[in-house]
Amino acid sequence: MKWVNVLGGIVGAAALLGLGIILGHFAIPKGTNSQHLQDLDLEILESIMQQLDASRIRENLRELSREPHLASSPQDEALVQLLLQRWRDPESGLDSAEASTYEVLLSFPSREQPNRVAVVSPTGNVLFSCRQSEQNLTGEQGGPDVVPPYAAYAPPGTPQGLLVYANQGTEEDFMKLQAQGIKLEGTIALTRYGGTGRGAKAVNAAKHGVAGVLVYTDPADINDGQSSTNETFPNSWRLPPSGVERGSYYEYFGDPLTPYLPANPSSFRLDPDTVSGFPPIPTQPIGFEDAKILLCNLQGASAPAAWQGALGCDYKLGPGFQPNGDFPADSQVNVSVYNRLELRNSSNVLGIIRGAVEPDRYVLYGNHRDSWVHGAVDPSSGTAVLLELSRVLGTLLKKGTWRPRRSIVFASWGAEEFGLIGSTEFTEEFFSKLQERAVAYINVDISVFANATLRAQGTPPVQSVIFAASKQIPAPSLGGLSIYDNWIRYFNRSSPVYGLVPSLGSLGAGSDYAPFIHFLGISSMDIAYTYDRSKTSARIYPTYHTAFDTFGYVDKFVDPGFSSHQAVARTAGSVLLRLSDSLFLPLNVSDYGETLRSFLQAAQQNLGVLLEQHSISLVPLVTAVEKFEGAAGALDQRISALQKATPDPLQVRMLNDQLMLLERTFLNPRAFPEERYYSHVLWAPRTGSVATFPGLANACSRAMNTSLGSPAWAEVQRQLSILVVALEGAAATLRPVADF
Amino acid sequence: MKWVNVLGGIVGAAALLGLGIILGHFAIPKGTNSQHLQDLDLEILESIMQQLDASRIRENLRELSREPHLASSPQDEALVQLLLQRWRDPESGLDSAEASTYEVLLSFPSREQPNRVAVVSPTGNVLFSCRQSEQNLTGEQGGPDVVPPYAAYAPPGTPQGLLVYANQGTEEDFMKLQAQGIKLEGTIALTRYGGTGRGAKAVNAAKHGVAGVLVYTDPADINDGQSSTNETFPNSWRLPPSGVERGSYYEYFGDPLTPYLPANPSSFRLDPDTVSGFPPIPTQPIGFEDAKILLCNLQGASAPAAWQGALGCDYKLGPGFQPNGDFPADSQVNVSVYNRLELRNSSNVLGIIRGAVEPDRYVLYGNHRDSWVHGAVDPSSGTAVLLELSRVLGTLLKKGTWRPRRSIVFASWGAEEFGLIGSTEFTEEFFSKLQERAVAYINVDISVFANATLRAQGTPPVQSVIFAASKQIPAPSLGGLSIYDNWIRYFNRSSPVYGLVPSLGSLGAGSDYAPFIHFLGISSMDIAYTYDRSKTSARIYPTYHTAFDTFGYVDKFVDPGFSSHQAVARTAGSVLLRLSDSLFLPLNVSDYGETLRSFLQAAQQNLGVLLEQHSISLVPLVTAVEKFEGAAGALDQRISALQKATPDPLQVRMLNDQLMLLERTFLNPRAFPEERYYSHVLWAPRTGSVATFPGLANACSRAMNTSLGSPAWAEVQRQLSILVVALEGAAATLRPVADF
Repeated sequence: MKWVNVLGGIVGAAALLGLGIILGHFAIPKGTNSQHLQDLDLEILESIMQQLDASRIRENLRELSREPHLASSPQDEALVQLLLQRWRDPESGLDSAEASTYEVLLSFPSREQPNRVAVVSPTGNVLFSCRQSEQNLTGEQGGPDVVPPYAAYAPPGTPQGLLVYANQGTEEDFMKLQAQGIKLEGTIALTRYGGTGRGAKAVNAAKHGVAGVLVYTDPADINDGQSSTNETFPNSWRLPPSGVERGSYYEYFGDPLTPYLPANPSSFRLDPDTVSGFPPIPTQPIGFEDAKILLCNLQGASAPAAWQGALGCDYKLGPGFQPNGDFPADSQVNVSVYNRLELRNSSNVLGIIRGAVEPDRYVLYGNHRDSWVHGAVDPSSGTAVLLELSRVLGTLLKKGTWRPRRSIVFASWGAEEFGLIGSTEFTEEFFSKLQERAVAYINVDISVFANATLRAQGTPPVQSVIFAASKQIPAPSLGGLSIYDNWIRYFNRSSPVYGLVPSLGSLGAGSDYAPFIHFLGISSMDIAYTYDRSKTSARIYPTYHTAFDTFGYVDKFVDPGFSSHQAVARTAGSVLLRLSDSLFLPLNVSDYGETLRSFLQAAQQNLGVLLEQHSISLVPLVTAVEKFEGAAGALDQRISALQKATPDPLQVRMLNDQLMLLERTFLNPRAFPEERYYSHVLWAPRTGSVATFPGLANACSRAMNTSLGSPAWAEVQRQLSILVVALEGAAATLRPVADF
Repeated sequence: MKWVNVLGGIVGAAALLGLGIILGHFAIPKGTNSQHLQDLDLEILESIMQQLDASRIRENLRELSREPHLASSPQDEALVQLLLQRWRDPESGLDSAEASTYEVLLSFPSREQPNRVAVVSPTGNVLFSCRQSEQNLTGEQGGPDVVPPYAAYAPPGTPQGLLVYANQGTEEDFMKLQAQGIKLEGTIALTRYGGTGRGAKAVNAAKHGVAGVLVYTDPADINDGQSSTNETFPNSWRLPPSGVERGSYYEYFGDPLTPYLPANPSSFRLDPDTVSGFPPIPTQPIGFEDAKILLCNLQGASAPAAWQGALGCDYKLGPGFQPNGDFPADSQVNVSVYNRLELRNSSNVLGIIRGAVEPDRYVLYGNHRDSWVHGAVDPSSGTAVLLELSRVLGTLLKKGTWRPRRSIVFASWGAEEFGLIGSTEFTEEFFSKLQERAVAYINVDISVFANATLRAQGTPPVQSVIFAASKQIPAPSLGGLSIYDNWIRYFNRSSPVYGLVPSLGSLGAGSDYAPFIHFLGISSMDIAYTYDRSKTSARIYPTYHTAFDTFGYVDKFVDPGFSSHQAVARTAGSVLLRLSDSLFLPLNVSDYGETLRSFLQAAQQNLGVLLEQHSISLVPLVTAVEKFEGAAGALDQRISALQKATPDPLQVRMLNDQLMLLERTFLNPRAFPEERYYSHVLWAPRTGSVATFPGLANACSRAMNTSLGSPAWAEVQRQLSILVVALEGAAATLRPVADF
């Protein structure tokens, strides 16, 4: 062999070896590293979207709403088992599923002594009694498990007095009655739903000496004025004359006996007699059929125009009945309430999909399970979607096709109807772990109020992911228009950053997201399909919390074909996937800047002069908002830069931690100690109507009529400082971590 | 060429290529991955240990203690500049250094009207006046910047009355005087340091109508009984007769006007007149030279044996002076205090070393900078160590030899002497960021009290890292005995897990670690060298908070040669390195199990019967402790397993997050709302002497004398539930993250 050949051979061999080394090192990703960069797979996402099946959602709903399933009832417990069975299914289940039970204080009407509302003559004869249950229109309203209409947590008692009409039972309404010279002491106040919380009506009434409260739903508020039998369910989606909205009249949320503690059997419990937040006087809801008989017989001055409704008569204020009506003028109304408080077991069901890369980051998705009666819309429309979503994901999981980057926690909450009890106890039990690790909470309670458009509520960082999801999904029956493009037609606003966009609502305490956002500072959202507001002014879907909220109602009137349910499943599912699978968390924190800026402008416009008069400067707040905007903008740029390069998994994790934890920085448990659970300085309840910083605005309105130097003005300054510190802390969390 | 050769060539080439691929993939670590696994380098650690230089610490101390540097004084500000200069040095500085300034409420004596304590005859003649400054023994006590002895935050006033002796001024002491029939109304109470907090003496006194309080240091408590000039400084380390302990008499910590808010110029401030926690009556500290004249002239019954001291006379109780003494029997004592509250600027200095791998994890190391006078021991002995440690680390950093895995934050706090003000404001300003990212806080305040042994305080997870560090470092002048082996001779306990080990003290509120552990739930520790307790019973080093705490005092008496300073620098430095550089955080969370178990046993032994009598079961607490132990043990096993395999950087990060955040899970801001800043359910102040769960024990002692069903017993149950929930939450944080 020639030396040239030998040399050539050696060079060739070296080249091959070298090539191999280069290929081995650079072309083949290390197992751990490539897995660490696992990102959202759009093909899998699209396949999931396709698999979410309207007819399966319909079947889920039929099964879920077959029986009334009031919290802690045997039927509620049967649904716990159904959820466990679905989530443990070997073909389509999750990694694990468990029920956890709390012992909570619920309130029920007595079976032996039904609550009663009656007109009683001066001699004690019962001249008229309101219905004690709704009319059995579809065969579903007559069963033994249909709980009669009642005001949960209203105390027992049998007050009797002259009837007055008190509109919505707000503080202003009672003031107005008093200003008219109407003596309220010892009366029974008839009020209509709306304007204020359920329990607040009784609280306001009691302050004026009212002895008992009735609440009804006016056809003007729920049925666009329609009230006759042939215009209402089962002939339309409207509320029948006998329908009564049940509900919790408790002022706070969570188990009433264990505030801030999980309601485990061994937990410390308050003495029920000392619990605050229950209605102070007996209260009972009635149907508008009965309300009409009471209201249209009242004597006295006509109620103001804004107090009039659609019962077909001139609403008078009372007190007492008119001489020429159905009842003797001195007849009184007797309200007999026999509600009982009971400690009951109520369960949450949790189903887990372990994350492949970051199992310690949790994306939570939940809905309550308990209903007032059959609860087809509320909450089973949401649970039907939840089960379809978990089925599709579970199937991929069991097949080995997919496992999310982060863990997914599905939750079915108990006893929401009594005051978000299951979810609140959960947040109390796992406070630390959730604060450390929860990425976001997605709530889908009622998934379909009506089938016109998407409606979403949430904190600013979730706006972008809901937009991204809704842009990729076709709206039902609109020829390819996306959910986003349909949505923007119904709810929109002009964003200084993005131009015209769909408007996201803010989160109150209407469903189980409340403890997550207000108590824990976890970015949260609520997703549903809803009304065309140009077609109805109904407060809510008409059979809400009645025995007419049935499968047939949904199937026939709310969402025939279930395409809106499917649209919600796809939207919420896509949001869930994006949050659990994206390498970079799709939480756009700079969208908080827009909210802060608008809150600031509102504060300047509405409170600026007042504060200036009291030598309180908004300059530190302006500076804090600017710092936030600057830090958020710079963070956006760092994310973009990192996305262009090959991202380093630890750097991504650090960045994602900044995004995840931003919402937590707005929590201050010492900001509003009197507002139970509310710690988020931006979303605590606001008494005024201007969308601005709640602590500052509330303190200002309390201080408005006091002199400078009073504790009320000190509280304004304290609230301003709390806010500034929170915003500066938020900006600090967004700045580069290495700068400290 | 034969086909065999061709085949052979192809096979050979393929083999070479394959070998190359295998080598390239497996034998050459990917850049990012290997960096991610950066771990503690023992060679670098040892080199740092060697470089920490006793003579440089001595020079630092000389420079730091040259001038009195009372908080917010020009000399304090000059030290801010010195720190900035050192930490910005191009050869030995850190990555960055900044000062941040707060506007805080301090208290100073008037320059124009010095505080005065005098004996006044019935006719108003001044018969005797206490010294208004300490004797100028070394030329350092006479300067204009030596603040005269005073009780910071004691209110101005000029009370005058008969003198009584009230021992340590505890509640029991005043009760005992009252029981003896001594009328306390309008008197001046002479008390000695010890037994209770400074401010508490005046609080207790005022409850009994006392008009003014004097405080002195008895030679029995500080000098092992010695009091003559030739037995005290400058002839020994003992307190000279004129020496007076200054101090803050404020009950809480943090800036008094801005609780829970950083004291930025724009922050909301309380009205100083409404601030709670200041002493209610004028108070003034005096030397034992003057105390002797007052005390040895008192009339009345002899004080109990336990109240007697070493002033060389029989201590009587008063009221008033004995007829045959130095003063007429009806002479009174006048206490004239002219202290003023002033808003002053006080700075923290922060120096940062960016972490190479996890820059968003902060290991904090700090000490205060302000002193009462020269403060050579307190705090400059700690700052001298801090500067030497930052010099050595800064030098390695600037040379490019080393960069820690995690970020290191060095801190020089302002205004600690007035109530941990600088550190508290820092934790208020960066609450969220620190809660999210702080790994631990290391405090080295007074680094050397005396040169016998190491003394460490901390929460259980830091025990192991202090042990590991102290085992590797030789104790000064003990022929190779390790600091650990020396330590165990002085402070030890029998651990059920480890056998005989040095005993770690628990953290009160004596230095700047307080806001970190109690308010933020960050694992903290305090490290120092201290006394041989068999050789002295001094409350603290004798010149504490006097004008005799000078460089010469340290150099001659406390630590000649500075080898104890060096030992502290090495120990704290090694702990810092281990926390910032180890791949797995060296926080041993299962050591919390031992503490919980011992607290539980103490509760069972001391409270068990009482609780049983009131039908309160400790079973849920037992279960919670067991759950914690189980979860911690299992976590230990997972760490061991992971350490044996090639660890995955993200898995390590997740595990470290569990370790880091454990301490946070014990926080409950709603547990003790009346205890300002204290939120840690295990380390809040305890009124009793038994080492057990503070909330439970305190509630029990309050409830002891009330009937079942009273709110006090409800509070016992509430505290028990708070504790159980915290322990269950802690266990939940330690369990495998993927199980949720």
